[in-house]
Amino acid sequence: MVAHVHRPIRKVAICAPATPLRRKYADAVAELAASEFPDLELAFHEQCFEQEGHFAGSDEVRLAALLECADDPEVDAVWFAKGGYGSNRIAAKFIGQAGQEAKDKAFIGYSDCGTLLGALYRARIGHPVHAPMPVDIKRDGGDDAVRRVLVWMSGDDGGLEPALSGRPRVAFNLYTLAMLVGTQFMPALEGHEVIIEEVGEYEYAIDRLMFHLIEHLRGIAGIRLGEVTAIPENDRPFGSDAEEIVRYWCQRYGIAYLGRAAIGHTSANRIVPFGLEA
Amino acid sequence: MVAHVHRPIRKVAICAPATPLRRKYADAVAELAASEFPDLELAFHEQCFEQEGHFAGSDEVRLAALLECADDPEVDAVWFAKGGYGSNRIAAKFIGQAGQEAKDKAFIGYSDCGTLLGALYRARIGHPVHAPMPVDIKRDGGDDAVRRVLVWMSGDDGGLEPALSGRPRVAFNLYTLAMLVGTQFMPALEGHEVIIEEVGEYEYAIDRLMFHLIEHLRGIAGIRLGEVTAIPENDRPFGSDAEEIVRYWCQRYGIAYLGRAAIGHTSANRIVPFGLEA
Repeated sequence: MVAHVHRPIRKVAICAPATPLRRKYADAVAELAASEFPDLELAFHEQCFEQEGHFAGSDEVRLAALLECADDPEVDAVWFAKGGYGSNRIAAKFIGQAGQEAKDKAFIGYSDCGTLLGALYRARIGHPVHAPMPVDIKRDGGDDAVRRVLVWMSGDDGGLEPALSGRPRVAFNLYTLAMLVGTQFMPALEGHEVIIEEVGEYEYAIDRLMFHLIEHLRGIAGIRLGEVTAIPENDRPFGSDAEEIVRYWCQRYGIAYLGRAAIGHTSANRIVPFGLEA
Repeated sequence: MVAHVHRPIRKVAICAPATPLRRKYADAVAELAASEFPDLELAFHEQCFEQEGHFAGSDEVRLAALLECADDPEVDAVWFAKGGYGSNRIAAKFIGQAGQEAKDKAFIGYSDCGTLLGALYRARIGHPVHAPMPVDIKRDGGDDAVRRVLVWMSGDDGGLEPALSGRPRVAFNLYTLAMLVGTQFMPALEGHEVIIEEVGEYEYAIDRLMFHLIEHLRGIAGIRLGEVTAIPENDRPFGSDAEEIVRYWCQRYGIAYLGRAAIGHTSANRIVPFGLEA
């Protein structure tokens, strides 16, 4: 599927399908955008700041905000404010209820929101794009992460993942993708480069997630590994590092290991439009 | 599939398909068995005490020990010493290479070793039994956990999960089962009661695992929830507890929630022979 995002993007609606964003981070992103990208309008939905238990509002509240952003004819792109966990809970109703206005928008985010990117890609709604989110402004170098997205929105491809080839590709958090495989939201990935990254998981858990993922992947072009950060210290060394683990499972299942990529839970996180975009 | 384990069990071979057992725990189990169950012979394979990185020896070493135990014509049951992580890595070769002598043995354990129980159940090799393992001797009340298994081996059903009905059933650690679904090792569970338990996972992670699990389960008789222990404290309350989470997903997918069960990562962990055994 080759279908290009129309850029420059002029108006961006921001909502939080998983967990809430702190208002100070929204303010910092808005300020950066206003001073450097005066032609771009960022609209933070108030739902970004709601909280109900773990989530940025109840399932109903998050779904309503997401649909409002996706169905707004004035909006060119929907930017997910933050991951965390929870977008899977509203994915089915979102895909079922999104209207015609959603069909040509870019949907931008990563981490837990990869569930929505995957579901949109499967449903062929809009243009899913793995990229930094407003919450990334809080990182060291977070201004650069956010700026990378705004620059891309303006039409410049400088922030794209450098390893993109002529093949279609997707990019996911490993755990998120492992929870997506085999579900009603999992897109067909035959012929795709699958780029994965992880944060905050033990190496044995990475090994276990790779086992599950690779049992489910069929006919892909290969796997590329982004950053694997904040690995907790276990009571004993696992015996191989994240790249060796990914190589092991690729080799065992006859899947090409394609090397590293520059995506991950860091401020260096690059942009990966799904499919053959870009 | 109704096929009964031949009890009393006379000789038990013990190996560690995942992580190593400390020798002092093996000694304590051996001592308890010798003093209270003189007719029962427990044979701890030396591989139980090997260590290579995370694992109780390399994949090759663990596989060889498991096959040796399973294929020994003198042995009535194979008891997994400990979970941890890693039995999935040797499951395919084990299932492919296990011989005729494995067909009528009981295979006993839980947690990570649920991967093997599931794979055996799918392949219709032996009698998979969810039950405490030798490592459980280290718990408060661990003697009772181990004794429960030895009593069951002697032919007494007093240690069975009390909620067992007339329907076939399986019992798994939730994370282990979530990694098993959709793989070459996943048994068909139509008509089964699926009993799950969890340890050491955040509530949001339990919610995520339930999403994944329930997307994969079709035609089961229902889900029963065992103990959910050692939930880490998150930066904010999730908003519902483990039982509410399981009820939520069951209700959402039209699966019967059957109530609680007495399995889990505690010394109260009960015995659940897979299928219609018992």
